Amino acid sequence: MPDSLTIGVDLGGTNTRAGLVNAEGEILGRGRRTTPVLEGADAVVEGIAQCVCEAVADGRANLTDIAGVGVGSPGPLDPYEGVVISPENLQCMHGCRLKDQLETELGVSVRVDNDANMAAFGEQWLGAGQGVDHFLCVTLGTGVGGGWVSGGKLMHGFNGNAAEVGHVTVDHKGPRCPCGNYGCLEKYASATAMVFWTKERIEKEQPDTMLDTQDLTTKTIYDAAKEGDAFAREMFESTGTFLGIGLVTLVNVTNVEMIALAGGMAAGGDLIFEPATRVFMDRGTVGVKEHVRIVPASLGDDAGILGAARLARS
Amino acid sequence: MPDSLTIGVDLGGTNTRAGLVNAEGEILGRGRRTTPVLEGADAVVEGIAQCVCEAVADGRANLTDIAGVGVGSPGPLDPYEGVVISPENLQCMHGCRLKDQLETELGVSVRVDNDANMAAFGEQWLGAGQGVDHFLCVTLGTGVGGGWVSGGKLMHGFNGNAAEVGHVTVDHKGPRCPCGNYGCLEKYASATAMVFWTKERIEKEQPDTMLDTQDLTTKTIYDAAKEGDAFAREMFESTGTFLGIGLVTLVNVTNVEMIALAGGMAAGGDLIFEPATRVFMDRGTVGVKEHVRIVPASLGDDAGILGAARLARS
Repeated sequence: MPDSLTIGVDLGGTNTRAGLVNAEGEILGRGRRTTPVLEGADAVVEGIAQCVCEAVADGRANLTDIAGVGVGSPGPLDPYEGVVISPENLQCMHGCRLKDQLETELGVSVRVDNDANMAAFGEQWLGAGQGVDHFLCVTLGTGVGGGWVSGGKLMHGFNGNAAEVGHVTVDHKGPRCPCGNYGCLEKYASATAMVFWTKERIEKEQPDTMLDTQDLTTKTIYDAAKEGDAFAREMFESTGTFLGIGLVTLVNVTNVEMIALAGGMAAGGDLIFEPATRVFMDRGTVGVKEHVRIVPASLGDDAGILGAARLARS
Repeated sequence: MPDSLTIGVDLGGTNTRAGLVNAEGEILGRGRRTTPVLEGADAVVEGIAQCVCEAVADGRANLTDIAGVGVGSPGPLDPYEGVVISPENLQCMHGCRLKDQLETELGVSVRVDNDANMAAFGEQWLGAGQGVDHFLCVTLGTGVGGGWVSGGKLMHGFNGNAAEVGHVTVDHKGPRCPCGNYGCLEKYASATAMVFWTKERIEKEQPDTMLDTQDLTTKTIYDAAKEGDAFAREMFESTGTFLGIGLVTLVNVTNVEMIALAGGMAAGGDLIFEPATRVFMDRGTVGVKEHVRIVPASLGDDAGILGAARLARS
């Protein structure tokens, strides 16, 4: 059935990736391009169109078989109009009417949404959140992003900025965030934040650790922790604690029954899940917390493509 | 049209109130009883039934004309099953299958929901939130409660505990809340909290103020502030600041376009709205905060009855 095929696109600051996806969520073909950020918005849109055509060809289909295209783009953006606003790592796309331009280019119906929303929508379709009606996916990477499905529907709010999970306050006296708020979860539980605080503490406290401030990533901190470095373990403990504090706030507002953690930090496994879950169980509300599962996301890099392909058929 | 009539009930720890409401939201008849908390759950349910019959009679209708009954009850409760769980100020109702018992009693379809949800649902139907699709109502009373309408629908989450707005964290090092969390908004921005912190500061700091710890209510603090008492004004300033901090978190998750403030504290007018709004505009996200209106709720004590009557027809 031709109309059961859609395309999901994951537009990133580095790569643009597309997948041809059937109604069961199988990826039948793929396309990939470096995102031409230096060439401007028109080139980026053109690159997306090429990726789409590549995925269609790779899956031995025709563009006329495609029921729709979904694009997950870095936000902020307007999902109702399909207009990109001002993404930090894709500034050239500011003001781009991505939906309209791509529809003209391809002659296919296009929907655009936030990349974190698309990852959540994918995970809830085929990954960790399968069959979970009230679901939050939190991506712990350079920043902390999220997407939220409630009653089976993707939540957007009035102008597409719902589930900005990285910007719940965990410490009102904390450092200012580029978003304008102070002490946001993102300032404590992103990979960037963990590296920042680790460096800060090494310099100020000169702890007994194998870590070196010259070569600090979440991976080196993880490796040190695995080798028994107490300071490195402590950094996971404090990052996980802040994450747990943030998750309590998120559940008290959204009342989701599952939170999937994705992104680089989630690769920390028990080192990050254990303290986050412990703090969540300590601070959460009785009658709610016992029912909430905090789990790793399961689709990896394909979550965004699958979510966008699902959006294109919804 | 008989089927356009429903009953809304506001069940409180002190009074039970019912209203006969038509499709336009006019209250055509009323019933009222003291809630017989000392006589147990059966007596409370019987009291609700009597209030319903009283409102029907007062509006010169018959019970057979009623399309349904909605009840707003103190939570926590299960809105899907209509079972009350363990309300702090209505402990006798713990475990009561309110929906089933009342349906048996009245022979009419019954729906039960959280009182704060019902106030929000009423305000969004006929009050401050009329025509606002993404709407939050925050009640600042003994505690801080809330109800949330998204895309025109009341939000419940997986087990009816969405929009527990009083339990977002504003200071993770703050005092423990009975909910289990630390530094909840409720610990700073409820009427109870304002009185607590005012007393604490008077005792510790002995400020120059006309306020006396023996006779401290939000009303006496308000009166003092209105008479120019600098310390009393400062207490409004700090309470409003915490409220603003909490509202930023709430908007960053829900992306509502309006927040209506209800309850005793909201009666503080500019004294509370001014700092709350100022902090919200300082800390909120560009592209969102400019569009959010923070306004007083407008239906007063009838919000809950009207929301429950609306629930009964939805």
